[in-house]
Amino acid sequence: MRWWGWGDPEHGGALPPRALGHLRETIGALGLPQPPVALEQVLLPGCALGGEDLARLRSIVGAEHVRADHAERVLHAAGKGYPDLLAMRAGRPPSAPDAVVYPASRTQLAEVLGACSELSIAVVPFGGGTSVVGGLAALRGNHRAAIALELARLEQPICLDESSRTVTAGAGTRVCALEQWLGARGFTLGHFPQSYEYVSVGGCAATRSAGQASTGYGRFEQLVRGLRASTPSGPIDLTPVPASAAGPSVRELLVGSEGTLAAIDELDLRVRPVAQARRYEGAFFPDFAQGVAAMRGLAQEGAEPTVARLSDESETSVSLQLSPGGASRRAGEAYLRLRGYAGGCLAILGFEGEHEDVERRRRRAREVLRAHAGLALGASPGRSWLHSRFAAPYLRDELLTHRVLVETLETATQWSNLLELHRRVGAAIARVLAGCGTPGIVMCHVSHLYETGASLYFTFFAPQLAGQELEQWGAVKQEACEAIVAGGGTITHHHAIGRDHAGWLEREIGREGVRALRALKDELDPAGIMNPGKLLPAPG
Amino acid sequence: MRWWGWGDPEHGGALPPRALGHLRETIGALGLPQPPVALEQVLLPGCALGGEDLARLRSIVGAEHVRADHAERVLHAAGKGYPDLLAMRAGRPPSAPDAVVYPASRTQLAEVLGACSELSIAVVPFGGGTSVVGGLAALRGNHRAAIALELARLEQPICLDESSRTVTAGAGTRVCALEQWLGARGFTLGHFPQSYEYVSVGGCAATRSAGQASTGYGRFEQLVRGLRASTPSGPIDLTPVPASAAGPSVRELLVGSEGTLAAIDELDLRVRPVAQARRYEGAFFPDFAQGVAAMRGLAQEGAEPTVARLSDESETSVSLQLSPGGASRRAGEAYLRLRGYAGGCLAILGFEGEHEDVERRRRRAREVLRAHAGLALGASPGRSWLHSRFAAPYLRDELLTHRVLVETLETATQWSNLLELHRRVGAAIARVLAGCGTPGIVMCHVSHLYETGASLYFTFFAPQLAGQELEQWGAVKQEACEAIVAGGGTITHHHAIGRDHAGWLEREIGREGVRALRALKDELDPAGIMNPGKLLPAPG
Repeated sequence: MRWWGWGDPEHGGALPPRALGHLRETIGALGLPQPPVALEQVLLPGCALGGEDLARLRSIVGAEHVRADHAERVLHAAGKGYPDLLAMRAGRPPSAPDAVVYPASRTQLAEVLGACSELSIAVVPFGGGTSVVGGLAALRGNHRAAIALELARLEQPICLDESSRTVTAGAGTRVCALEQWLGARGFTLGHFPQSYEYVSVGGCAATRSAGQASTGYGRFEQLVRGLRASTPSGPIDLTPVPASAAGPSVRELLVGSEGTLAAIDELDLRVRPVAQARRYEGAFFPDFAQGVAAMRGLAQEGAEPTVARLSDESETSVSLQLSPGGASRRAGEAYLRLRGYAGGCLAILGFEGEHEDVERRRRRAREVLRAHAGLALGASPGRSWLHSRFAAPYLRDELLTHRVLVETLETATQWSNLLELHRRVGAAIARVLAGCGTPGIVMCHVSHLYETGASLYFTFFAPQLAGQELEQWGAVKQEACEAIVAGGGTITHHHAIGRDHAGWLEREIGREGVRALRALKDELDPAGIMNPGKLLPAPG
Repeated sequence: MRWWGWGDPEHGGALPPRALGHLRETIGALGLPQPPVALEQVLLPGCALGGEDLARLRSIVGAEHVRADHAERVLHAAGKGYPDLLAMRAGRPPSAPDAVVYPASRTQLAEVLGACSELSIAVVPFGGGTSVVGGLAALRGNHRAAIALELARLEQPICLDESSRTVTAGAGTRVCALEQWLGARGFTLGHFPQSYEYVSVGGCAATRSAGQASTGYGRFEQLVRGLRASTPSGPIDLTPVPASAAGPSVRELLVGSEGTLAAIDELDLRVRPVAQARRYEGAFFPDFAQGVAAMRGLAQEGAEPTVARLSDESETSVSLQLSPGGASRRAGEAYLRLRGYAGGCLAILGFEGEHEDVERRRRRAREVLRAHAGLALGASPGRSWLHSRFAAPYLRDELLTHRVLVETLETATQWSNLLELHRRVGAAIARVLAGCGTPGIVMCHVSHLYETGASLYFTFFAPQLAGQELEQWGAVKQEACEAIVAGGGTITHHHAIGRDHAGWLEREIGREGVRALRALKDELDPAGIMNPGKLLPAPG
């Protein structure tokens, strides 16, 4: 993974040549390209761990598994949120772990937590390193140092219970590695977040990840049947059971706890047989309201899409502008104009499963589309979406080089509130960008469908406010979050709380909810070493 | 509701005349019938609340809504578990509330909790009054008195969001009243526990209820989208959202909290359109193992039954013996013998939904049945199951009169462990009954299907051990619970923890899990007034 951005360092540019031109046309002049600094130019604070601390940690996991070298500290200094990337590219991360520790077993992990409690060292559990909400910032809290607790070696054992359709995997197991392993045995986890190439199963559980196919396969927490976790106070082992009425759900406490209560060691996850058939196709709606009505129909009337994404007018327009293949694209747009759909909304629908079942659900979907003025566009938009489904983070890096503010944020609400929330949040983002003197493009898609509502995923672009890049981002983030919670949405549908949403948690779960979680943390992590500064708002 | 048993006092006997004869044949001689004592003979401890306490409570909810009369205290002295009924019928409840308090609003409820915290009065939230795990025992804990907090007046407002398919209802709303209200508007909650005629929505949420149709409509916690609750420390308001990644789930903490953290005030619940079509039918399998394999196929291969119940050989045999309609029953048994299915297992499958969809799922189910030697029996067994689906608690009362120990207990586990757990728990119950000198009948059915596993619901009968009825029950319960947790099952799939399973919670969630829940309770209920003696094991 690139320390200053996304993906394999060998990965080439992904920005279509005319995209920058289009961006300049719509958001105005951009500054000169600014590449990231060189790795050796990244400034880190000196390592706050003394020789004795390092020796203690090395005695637990082995000398070669405690790393305090520059490259390793830089790579673990942040996640992949916009503020993270701004800081890393400039070579000025606001914090960095003093060491990176790689336990290889649950016993080692528990001993590391014990040593850190004793030595007053903060612990930041580290899975795939893809948090976009500041969940990986090496904040020390009240402690004298911080380590990144790298879980990559907790990738054993992988064990499949075919009849119960569950797989057991170490928390550090990469989702893509597990998917490959399962695929060879005829099964799939069905979890494809945009960060698919890097995320670990432990990270997905700790942050309530949702993937592009979670409408069909379920959110990550719906896959978790059992888990083993280590808290500084001791282990919690939850046997995989299909359902239980044994009190408040401790599983649902650890899932979503974002490393603030425990490090997850191992998970039992629901799997499904590999789909026999996969059909991805496009549809077009005259406007967002009709598209949303259709999405609701799909969710409530038995079409059971595996993937369903509806772009609003703005996102549709940008996607068409940026899509490759000039002639066929122009032909497509001409066709839509001819049919009276100019300025409308594009949707991508995917169906996976048994052949017969996929065909039945597609028939049902076509009925729903017809009822809401939807126009079926065939397989080509589906193919092109599948082709580029993991590309956005690469694009972002190039836009950052071109001094473009590019950020995403997301929420979910009931169907009855979806259009209004879309309007409020979109307007808030646009207003603040304009107020900064950097008017931008705000676009959105519905990305996950439920019987009672759906998610909204906003993306926005604007020229960076030179010298005040972070403040510009902070102003937009603040107002967008305010619009979300005041408008009845959840502060996050799948990005989690991390550092960036911690100040909003109380608006979501109330003062008593926060007090309850804090009491829980005090009990399980009495020294307060687990991921300080994340999830819970600062006291007082 | 009868204070000494189940149902409307006007409800007649339900025990088929020859059932007792059959029971005598199989479990031996029973004692002389013993009806419950008269209401006025029930011995209650004197009311421990003084005039000032009562005046304070009356000032909050109004004089007529604080009841301390004999009948009201008796009716709220216990739930409907076997130990409860033993005690009530004998007129010797081990505890009773000192008063029954009926708040009519959230404000009143919060004030009652405030007063009770101040006055050291334990609070037992009371919904439908149907707990079978001692969840309603008026235990005082360290307090000087206890009240039943009757939520029956919290039945407003009822408000339907048709497009989001959610209904908002006060916690005291009866599930059957809500179902009727929804039915008039074309919707259903789809929640039909055996206690359907009495349970409240708040009670179902607080205990993670599962109903007979929960395989299709989802467990009660899957219906809860938002909720409002009052803790002694303050209110918790959770907006209905379809999904969220905002940290550990506070909703999943309050759901299942059994009145130990909060009284639930109001719920937002998912609803579905009333089914166009309903098909209930029977099937027969040569043995339980083949039946379980078929249930697994139904759950994993797209048959999506709304209801699926598979009786083991013992339960099948008893059902056939006790079923009404002698000639047709005998003809049915002869038919099964002829087809080589004598001694096999009966299943009831129900499909609800749109016509076309129901037919598709039934076709799929027939394929699964064929693959596992299942014999379709047509609609008649389905009709007869639907007819008597809420009858068991009435039958129990009559059996108690005839001095029969009759009890149920339940669990859930992964498919790969289901047959083994069935064997272990059944053997444990039979062994203890025999050890008491009262060998009995042990039977079981699979009642809820999931992709990864299913529930097991055991029923057993034996002659009561005269003079040691409670000890006899306790011995069986102890060994059955031990077999469940040692065998990898959850201590409860849908009856909840209450008083009777509190000692087993640590085996389910571990020492740290219990510590976490206790810390949570200490924070939200610092005076410890909320339902003491339930859910959490006694400290130390």
